[in-house]
Amino acid sequence: MDASALPSFIPVGPANLKEKIYTQVGPDLARIEEEINRLLDSDIPLISVVGRYITGSGGKRLRPLLMILASRLCGYKGRDDVRLAVVFEFVHAATLLHDDVVDHAEFRRSCPAANTVWGNPAVVLVGDFLYSRSIQIAVGYQDIRILQVLLDATTSMSEGEVLQLINSDNLEISESEYLEVINRKTATLISASCQTGAIFGGGGAGEEKALKAYGQNLGIAFQLIDDTLDFTGEAEELGKPVGNDLQEGKATLPLIYALKNAKAAERLRLRQIFTSEKIPPEMITEITDIVARSGGIEYTTGQACVHAMRAKEALRIFPESPAKDILLDIADYVTCRRT
Amino acid sequence: MDASALPSFIPVGPANLKEKIYTQVGPDLARIEEEINRLLDSDIPLISVVGRYITGSGGKRLRPLLMILASRLCGYKGRDDVRLAVVFEFVHAATLLHDDVVDHAEFRRSCPAANTVWGNPAVVLVGDFLYSRSIQIAVGYQDIRILQVLLDATTSMSEGEVLQLINSDNLEISESEYLEVINRKTATLISASCQTGAIFGGGGAGEEKALKAYGQNLGIAFQLIDDTLDFTGEAEELGKPVGNDLQEGKATLPLIYALKNAKAAERLRLRQIFTSEKIPPEMITEITDIVARSGGIEYTTGQACVHAMRAKEALRIFPESPAKDILLDIADYVTCRRT
Repeated sequence: MDASALPSFIPVGPANLKEKIYTQVGPDLARIEEEINRLLDSDIPLISVVGRYITGSGGKRLRPLLMILASRLCGYKGRDDVRLAVVFEFVHAATLLHDDVVDHAEFRRSCPAANTVWGNPAVVLVGDFLYSRSIQIAVGYQDIRILQVLLDATTSMSEGEVLQLINSDNLEISESEYLEVINRKTATLISASCQTGAIFGGGGAGEEKALKAYGQNLGIAFQLIDDTLDFTGEAEELGKPVGNDLQEGKATLPLIYALKNAKAAERLRLRQIFTSEKIPPEMITEITDIVARSGGIEYTTGQACVHAMRAKEALRIFPESPAKDILLDIADYVTCRRT
Repeated sequence: MDASALPSFIPVGPANLKEKIYTQVGPDLARIEEEINRLLDSDIPLISVVGRYITGSGGKRLRPLLMILASRLCGYKGRDDVRLAVVFEFVHAATLLHDDVVDHAEFRRSCPAANTVWGNPAVVLVGDFLYSRSIQIAVGYQDIRILQVLLDATTSMSEGEVLQLINSDNLEISESEYLEVINRKTATLISASCQTGAIFGGGGAGEEKALKAYGQNLGIAFQLIDDTLDFTGEAEELGKPVGNDLQEGKATLPLIYALKNAKAAERLRLRQIFTSEKIPPEMITEITDIVARSGGIEYTTGQACVHAMRAKEALRIFPESPAKDILLDIADYVTCRRT
């Protein structure tokens, strides 16, 4: 099949992964898009408009995809998981909206950030709506275990966001403190999508634990690669400027590594530039060069690979199946992605 | 008993109401304060600090008080409702934090608004945390019906907030559109506190319906009086400047009434002043005078009394009891309060 002929709702990935996903869960992903659109049909136009803007701006639909794959892996054969999968996309969208306010973001995925179009008040409130609506949908499934997993994740996420804020402009953050932030901020929701899939799909305790671990490790790998892309990516592919994290005062693992391992003069220079109010483009290049020379990119990519490997190992308890095959491929894709 | 000797956690009200509340549920209110404090004990200091600031700034604790009174009215005699009552205070606190960001508030209850102290990012994120944590606590009660009531309320609330935002600076808003906004924005959470008390307290369908109606009407009355106080209150008692709603572009019922019923020249003048960017103090006085002359304050107070009466009527199905007596008194207090 020609991958370019695949519908646009197939998440980003290499052509062969896209094809597998399309073959296995194509109709489900199409229904996820329909459901997202339908659930955003509000009698309050601003909710529909901002909601569709943030959910329609080229996201990977990673969380709902993982949820339905996890439920299929545990043997679920129905179609009632689609709406529950949307919950994870909505929670993610709510976080993106609030993040853009918190970070004073100008761009997201090559489009003006929502706050620059509708202003902070609308973006804060529509974020609140999406968050509340998503949990309301989850409540409709009448499963306390799923709600526990979901609310544990959202609470941990919001703690992670606060931790990240506290650590902005903090060059003294250690690798383990940083991993704690990304674990809460990014990995818990991805993990919760997988765990929820296991519960909904009727998996046993062992399967639930395995999929939770898969998601947790995948989420960390995903975020670590995100962090490297801020140094090595192309603005056009990223949809935001290179060095965006640096401008926002976020010290991520490549920088944390360089601050310990670059040459003394370069370490000093990193501190000088990072702490300046607004970093001019040529100094962004200077930082990315120092970080690359220090080995910070390789180290971070290596750590991402370790976590992706752990994610794959966690799935060992499952027999071979198309769903497992895709989950393994996603772990590989995450570490080599360029956007 | 000397009312001034009552502990400070007894919600605002006339001395005799305070005494009744203290006698009936004093120990519960004390435990609510302890629980609020304990639940805000986070290993992330910013969460504790901002959380305690917003919950400790002299709120009335109306929602948790109503929840425990409703559960007692339905026959509940235990003490396990205290933690569930805190859920409603936390959701309310989260809303206040986000409201302050949305409204660019400078003061709340005579203190600098949280956003002026910690900045918008911290306030948005701690609001998210409080909201998520509160639902997580509610999930711990393992009662889907309660979660449905809670999430229906929070979703409706966030819609109400968006509606209010859309209508900012809108002088064409009708009385019924306005009532829809305050119903969603304020009344649904108060109603949900009462309804949850009924469910948790083991009330039947009729009791649940009655307490839901009580809360809904009480909430509308509460908000309508709030709206009049913005015209007639004293800045010192209100803890924020008189005419604050006007400055924020919020057309509330007293103004909506005056825009229809004041003399032609005065109606024109109201429009002129209201639409100006920043309203100087003497023009605030001019507006409040016109609104008062038009009968807007009496009309709004009258509508508040109608709703308070309906709230009391809804409780007719319950036999006399101390809890019912207090709920009736609260409905009376709400319409004559000055802060």
